[in-house]
Amino acid sequence: MKLLRYGEPGQERPGVLDADGQIRSLVGVIDDVAGDALARESLATLDAIDLSTLPVVSPVTRRGPCVAGTGKILCIGLNYADHAAESGSALPAEPLVFMKAISAITGPDDPLEIPRTSEKTDWEVELCVVIGEQAKYVSEADALGYVAGYCVMNDVSERAFQKERCGQWTKGKSCDTFAPIGPYLVTADEVPHPERLRLWLEVDGRRYQDGSTEQMIFGVAKLVSYLSQFMTLHPGDLISTGTPPGVGMGQKPPVFLRPGQTVRLGIEGLGEQTHGTVAG
Amino acid sequence: MKLLRYGEPGQERPGVLDADGQIRSLVGVIDDVAGDALARESLATLDAIDLSTLPVVSPVTRRGPCVAGTGKILCIGLNYADHAAESGSALPAEPLVFMKAISAITGPDDPLEIPRTSEKTDWEVELCVVIGEQAKYVSEADALGYVAGYCVMNDVSERAFQKERCGQWTKGKSCDTFAPIGPYLVTADEVPHPERLRLWLEVDGRRYQDGSTEQMIFGVAKLVSYLSQFMTLHPGDLISTGTPPGVGMGQKPPVFLRPGQTVRLGIEGLGEQTHGTVAG
Repeated sequence: MKLLRYGEPGQERPGVLDADGQIRSLVGVIDDVAGDALARESLATLDAIDLSTLPVVSPVTRRGPCVAGTGKILCIGLNYADHAAESGSALPAEPLVFMKAISAITGPDDPLEIPRTSEKTDWEVELCVVIGEQAKYVSEADALGYVAGYCVMNDVSERAFQKERCGQWTKGKSCDTFAPIGPYLVTADEVPHPERLRLWLEVDGRRYQDGSTEQMIFGVAKLVSYLSQFMTLHPGDLISTGTPPGVGMGQKPPVFLRPGQTVRLGIEGLGEQTHGTVAG
Repeated sequence: MKLLRYGEPGQERPGVLDADGQIRSLVGVIDDVAGDALARESLATLDAIDLSTLPVVSPVTRRGPCVAGTGKILCIGLNYADHAAESGSALPAEPLVFMKAISAITGPDDPLEIPRTSEKTDWEVELCVVIGEQAKYVSEADALGYVAGYCVMNDVSERAFQKERCGQWTKGKSCDTFAPIGPYLVTADEVPHPERLRLWLEVDGRRYQDGSTEQMIFGVAKLVSYLSQFMTLHPGDLISTGTPPGVGMGQKPPVFLRPGQTVRLGIEGLGEQTHGTVAG
């Protein structure tokens, strides 16, 4: 299933994409794409519904963030060997973990705000894992059982805020609109090989990133298990798994975003995002 | 006012401390100590209520986290000159910011879990700022207007996870139970001088930390304004402002927590926390 949320910011409703690419409303079926609705059993119940019986939603409706109730966004740094090389960083011996504030979450087609003093706003297309059930101290063998599905994330990053403003990456990762997710939460049963997906990103039609999740150093099961040794993962929590080469700061000379541009990105089978950049 | 939340985990109800130190129920008055209830105007309305008209809550009731609806916990590192010295770190030129996961939040008297593989679980008593209204790009002069009040936070930290497990502090700061807050959200009108408060922490009766918020490098108004340049602060968001000297890793030799100990900490006018440590 491709689950999604539609409607104005803060008033999104749950929906699902049918075989013809139409949005069908899940209002009255589940409260939201969140919490208990993300458990394997609930997803199986949803999957048994005949979608043609559900109301069609107008295609001009805004697509919101595809998941609600997210308590934390855990991100993995330098998880693609080639991207580590372009950043001039050594390969991490174990997953490098940082967080983005959940206040940065936006929909897949919402404007991307360039912060007022920013000169180095950059992009990172990433495969994002959506947690479906509470996970603590889980083994790598069991880890995928806690995954509801996957979505596209743009791990937008202000490089000066991240690296030149006194230690820790938080400031450069958490600005408003720096975590667009969606358009769909694609359930895990439809993504049998999360480490075999092509992912790409373009700015004003120029393709900067064009990679494959095959290049990830730490795979999905490893990351879920690893993180669960440190803290409980809850339904709706997100794990953004790192980005392939081609970010702006890796260009020679570096290239950063400015207001008035269009960023498009996508992952094979998970859909596409399109943001216009605006002044913050 | 001293606002608080009482009841079993996940089922807390709003309350307020009366002049005799009794908990009075705010059920039916506000939904929770969260969101819109934290705005200045709402707090003023609450403050006008005759507390003797509200039901008394049994004093044996568990005290929960004093605020709900927290979207992010922003922490300031090395914000006390003496603590930076004991950590062997240079003074930061601007606030060093990191985040704790909100899944780490617990009540002021709840058990403190030592994670399974932990050998270096440490303590940090901190003055925690509770945001009352949405703040973005606010000036230092206006910043205190966005503060609902203050509470005690123990910024529990696993030093090996924080510093020896591949970059960024997230892993050592976000373990379950690593963010006990409360017992009270003391409204800002009752804390006229947040930079003039004594704060202390004891383990098994031995006092390790005994400092004053006077030693903070960056004060509350500066921190609120500074953070709001990077991201929107929302009602219930927390800013933990750093710790004075006396953490375990600063002892010679270093001292860390083990199961079966008792940690007590407090801040002048904001109340005390008591945690028993348990194996995770």
